Amino acid sequence: MRNILLTIEYDGTNYHGWQRQKNAVSVQQLIEESIQRVTGDRVKLIGSGRTDTGVHALGQRANFKSQTQIPAERIPQAINSCLPDDIRIIQAIDVKQDFHARYDAVAKKYRYRIYNNPVPSAIYRNHSCFVPEKLNVDMMIQACEYMTGEKDFSSFCSSGSVVRSKIRNVKLLELTRQGKMIDIIIQADGFLYKMVRSIAGTLVEVGKGNIPPCHIEAILDKKDRRYAGPTLPPQGLFLEEVLYGSNS
Amino acid sequence: MRNILLTIEYDGTNYHGWQRQKNAVSVQQLIEESIQRVTGDRVKLIGSGRTDTGVHALGQRANFKSQTQIPAERIPQAINSCLPDDIRIIQAIDVKQDFHARYDAVAKKYRYRIYNNPVPSAIYRNHSCFVPEKLNVDMMIQACEYMTGEKDFSSFCSSGSVVRSKIRNVKLLELTRQGKMIDIIIQADGFLYKMVRSIAGTLVEVGKGNIPPCHIEAILDKKDRRYAGPTLPPQGLFLEEVLYGSNS
Repeated sequence: MRNILLTIEYDGTNYHGWQRQKNAVSVQQLIEESIQRVTGDRVKLIGSGRTDTGVHALGQRANFKSQTQIPAERIPQAINSCLPDDIRIIQAIDVKQDFHARYDAVAKKYRYRIYNNPVPSAIYRNHSCFVPEKLNVDMMIQACEYMTGEKDFSSFCSSGSVVRSKIRNVKLLELTRQGKMIDIIIQADGFLYKMVRSIAGTLVEVGKGNIPPCHIEAILDKKDRRYAGPTLPPQGLFLEEVLYGSNS
Repeated sequence: MRNILLTIEYDGTNYHGWQRQKNAVSVQQLIEESIQRVTGDRVKLIGSGRTDTGVHALGQRANFKSQTQIPAERIPQAINSCLPDDIRIIQAIDVKQDFHARYDAVAKKYRYRIYNNPVPSAIYRNHSCFVPEKLNVDMMIQACEYMTGEKDFSSFCSSGSVVRSKIRNVKLLELTRQGKMIDIIIQADGFLYKMVRSIAGTLVEVGKGNIPPCHIEAILDKKDRRYAGPTLPPQGLFLEEVLYGSNS
């Protein structure tokens, strides 16, 4: 039995997120169906994690077990031939029997894109979050420093989430502006539910002047979602990369 | 009577180009209808030029005459409220009575985007041209030099086009690569029919090694469309900017 790891790019606009749903079309479901058509195997795809409705991915990862004899390098094209063009398998490799796309992930990298202009964009409407107010990027960059490192991110976790620990290690939190587009890049060993979108929402409040950068520490200390900024919409969020240890 | 100049961004994916058509939906038609709903005036929108089916614009320009009393700065939001979200008016200004968006244009700037990767992109599928073959970017940059300046571009003009002169002055032709994306920026005093897409197609042939950069001179000398590379598809093309003289 082979264990095959896929790298997947998708435009989340038309899907109800990554995970299989009963009454809505998900990315996982379409890929599982395509794999079945190509290999004949009814497979269960193990994703590195869920993405919400409307969220995109440039480098989602998922593995599945299969008896197929198709060489790894031909698998992307084979599966893609049965997929709509807003989902693309960009790589397939054989991995160890016990490799698990979710448990073996050591870090993830996300991008959140903000289109900062008085008028919304036609071109980027599905691939960014529109913010018309003037934003002070220098203050936003200052605020990023306060959210970097190993901290309890309870204030940036959607209420109702039941996880044992809300401590996460944010190894990278970078904000850059190019013309009208502001990009927030964040890498951590793990993410709480809607953590990136609430960090982005808090940074926008900082940029508007509603939260001083130095208040971020107090927001973290509160360990209460109500003190941070709003959760920004899904269309600005991209799962860029899932990182695995060298042993995987 | 006011003469109002609009700057327009649109995602051309769902439209049969800029110009009004009898049996298909165009960008011009939807904007004219929106202006009528907002101002009550039945207007004729004068665009800086056509764009083909599937071609995008970040800075198309068009003017119209109207009696409306809406201040210029409020016009974008008013018209946008009646438009689908893949067409956005990004600016409106009052211009001189005799200003004409097409005749007064002194130059235009286009971008052609090539997604150069073995597998097509899900995210950029409608906003770039997919080229899977390896491309030699240094050779493509060399070839750009041969197409810069005032030259007869007959070899880069779709056959059947009836214009008096096919001499155009390409003031800027720049090619850059960032990761998988190659961007060609071209500015000229005017463009022949499908000129940008056939220049881009020729540059791709150079990148593949099928045309040496120094052969561009001979291709121009032939004044025959058959000697240049193919016309690339519309989804990679963006009208970035229309330039007007300081007197306009």
